[in-house]
Amino acid sequence: MESNSPTSCEDYAADISSIRQAQVRIEPFVHKTPVLTSETLNSIAGRKLYFKCECFQKGGAFKFRGACNAIYSLADNQAEKGVVTHSSGNHAAALALAAKLRGIPAYIVIPKNAPKCKVENVKRYGGQVIWSEPSMESRENTANKVLQDTGAVLIHPYNDGRIISGQGTISLEFLEQASEIDTLIVPISGGGLISGVALAAKAINPAIRILAAEPMGADDAFQSKINGRITKLSEVNTIADGLRAFLGDLTWPIVRDLVDDVIVVDDKEIIQAMRLCYEILKIAVEPSGAIGLAAVLSDGFQQNPAYSECNHIGIVISGGNVDLGVIWNSLEK
Amino acid sequence: MESNSPTSCEDYAADISSIRQAQVRIEPFVHKTPVLTSETLNSIAGRKLYFKCECFQKGGAFKFRGACNAIYSLADNQAEKGVVTHSSGNHAAALALAAKLRGIPAYIVIPKNAPKCKVENVKRYGGQVIWSEPSMESRENTANKVLQDTGAVLIHPYNDGRIISGQGTISLEFLEQASEIDTLIVPISGGGLISGVALAAKAINPAIRILAAEPMGADDAFQSKINGRITKLSEVNTIADGLRAFLGDLTWPIVRDLVDDVIVVDDKEIIQAMRLCYEILKIAVEPSGAIGLAAVLSDGFQQNPAYSECNHIGIVISGGNVDLGVIWNSLEK
Repeated sequence: MESNSPTSCEDYAADISSIRQAQVRIEPFVHKTPVLTSETLNSIAGRKLYFKCECFQKGGAFKFRGACNAIYSLADNQAEKGVVTHSSGNHAAALALAAKLRGIPAYIVIPKNAPKCKVENVKRYGGQVIWSEPSMESRENTANKVLQDTGAVLIHPYNDGRIISGQGTISLEFLEQASEIDTLIVPISGGGLISGVALAAKAINPAIRILAAEPMGADDAFQSKINGRITKLSEVNTIADGLRAFLGDLTWPIVRDLVDDVIVVDDKEIIQAMRLCYEILKIAVEPSGAIGLAAVLSDGFQQNPAYSECNHIGIVISGGNVDLGVIWNSLEK
Repeated sequence: MESNSPTSCEDYAADISSIRQAQVRIEPFVHKTPVLTSETLNSIAGRKLYFKCECFQKGGAFKFRGACNAIYSLADNQAEKGVVTHSSGNHAAALALAAKLRGIPAYIVIPKNAPKCKVENVKRYGGQVIWSEPSMESRENTANKVLQDTGAVLIHPYNDGRIISGQGTISLEFLEQASEIDTLIVPISGGGLISGVALAAKAINPAIRILAAEPMGADDAFQSKINGRITKLSEVNTIADGLRAFLGDLTWPIVRDLVDDVIVVDDKEIIQAMRLCYEILKIAVEPSGAIGLAAVLSDGFQQNPAYSECNHIGIVISGGNVDLGVIWNSLEK
C-alpha cells in the first residue's frame, strides 16, 4: 500500500490479504449468514439469484463485520479510550456492539432524524448516544468535540481500510457458499461495502462482474463514474436511509477501477423489492437492503444486452433494520 | 406397523425408518432450511434458542416436506390421476407445488375465508382451486365430490403416515445442525408436524423433551391430553389460521405418548412473538409460525420449574405466509 503507481491495486486501502486477515480476526464474533434462493424469484428475474442475507448478521446488517474488524485491530492502549462515530444508524449499532464485546466505550453521534429502530439498536448494545443535527457538518463537528473530550478513536463508517476489509469478508463466504456466481450486485452508498466485496471477489475470480445498485435520489456514485471523479450532490432524496452517503477518497479509487457499472433505481422499485423479499423470501429487509433485487428486476438491467450473460447473480441483502410498527399496532387492535 | 400392541411404537403411522426414507425421497426437492440464533432473544428468554426456519421452505412452510413425500410415494398409475386436498392453505400450496414438480394435477378445495396470500400461492404453483364454505363439513363434501369425479388420491393435511414422515425430516436436519438441543417446541394443530418431529427426535435422542405450542382459542390438544382422548372443540378462535384443526386418529396416539406437555398462549402473545421474529430475527413469520417463541416467552413456560433444565431449545418456525399488504400500501403513498 506504499506504491506510487496510482492505478495499481497496491494503492487501495485494503486488499485480499487484509480481507483474509479480517476474516480470521472477526470469525469468532460474526454470524456466517445463510444464502437463500427462490425459484419464484428466479422465474421473475429470468436468472438464478443467490441472496446473501446480511440482515441476519449481528446488529441486523453487514456493518458489524467492518466495525468488529476495526475495533479488534486496535492496540489495547488505543482501544481503552473507546471509539467514536457519526452514522445514519447501522454502522453505529454495529460499532456499539463490537465495542461492547471488547469491553470499551462507544460514543455514537446520531442525527436527530435517524430511524427509531436504529437508535434503539445503538442503545440496546450499550452505545452512548450523542445527538447532532441532520447535516453532515453538524455530525462531524459533534464527533470532533467528542474526540477531543475523550481521546477515543474515530472509526469512519466506510472511508477506512479496516472497515473495507471487514466488509470484504462477505465475498469470501459468499463465493464459497455459491461458487457458480458470475455477477455480484451490491448496494452503494459511501462505498465501504462494495469496495471490500469487489476487492475480494475480483481477487478470487477476476472475471466476476461487480454491479452497484444506487437510488436515483442519491446517485453520486453513478455521477462520479460518469465524471471520472468524486461527485457530491447538493441534496439527496430517497427512502433508502442507509444509502445517502457519498463516496470517500479511499473508496472512490476502488469503485472507479473495480465496479463495472452502477444501476440506478427509483424508490418505488425499492419498495416493490422489499415487498418481494418479505412475501417470497420471507425476510425482513430495509430499503437499502432490497436495492440489489430492485436493480436486477429493473428495466435498466433486464433490457441491457450487456447483462445477458449474467446468469448466476449474487445479491447482497445488506440489512434488515426497518421500522414497521404500524403493522403490529393494526394487528393488536 | 402391524403390531397388535396398542402402546408400542410400531403402531404409529410413521417411525424413524419411514422418516429416513422420506428424507432420501424428498432431498432433491426441499430446501435444507437454516437455523438462526440471536443473542438478543437468548437474553430475553434466558435460554439458548435455535430457530429452524421453515418459513424459508419451498411454498413458505414446512408443509412441502410432507406433501412432497406423499406425492413421490405414489405409484405412477395412482399419481397420474392427480391429488386432492382440503386445507387452510399451506398444505394446499405445498401439495400444488409438489404435484407440479411431478407433473400431475392437484385439486385444492379451499374455504372461502382462507388468507389471500395462501390462495395466491396455490394458484402460483398451478393448483386447481375449488372453493367450499368455511365449515369442515363443506370442505370434506366438496373434496369427496372431486375424488369421485377425477379418481384422484386424497392427501390429508396431517392424518396420513406419508405426511407425518415427511414433516419428521425436520428433526433429522435440526438435530444435525444443533446437536446440543435438549428441548423442541413445535406448533400443534392437526398434529402432523409435531408427530413427525417427535418420532424422529425421540429415536435419535430419547431424553429430548417435546413441547407443543397451542393457541388458547383452539386448545384441543391441551384438552385431549388432559382427557386422555381426542377432544374436539365446538368452535375455535385464534389469529393463528394454521392452528385451527383438531388432532386425528393417526396423530393422537403419537401426541399422547411422545409430547411431554402442551403450552397454551393467547393471540396477544403470538403477535408479540411475530414482532420479535420480524424485528430481531429479521424473518417474516405467520402467527402459527411464531407460536413456539411465544410459548418460550410465556409465563406458563418461564415460571414452571419443570422447564428449568431446558437450556438449549429448538423452535420450529413453521411458516411465513402472512398478508401484510397494509404496510406496502402505506409505504407507497
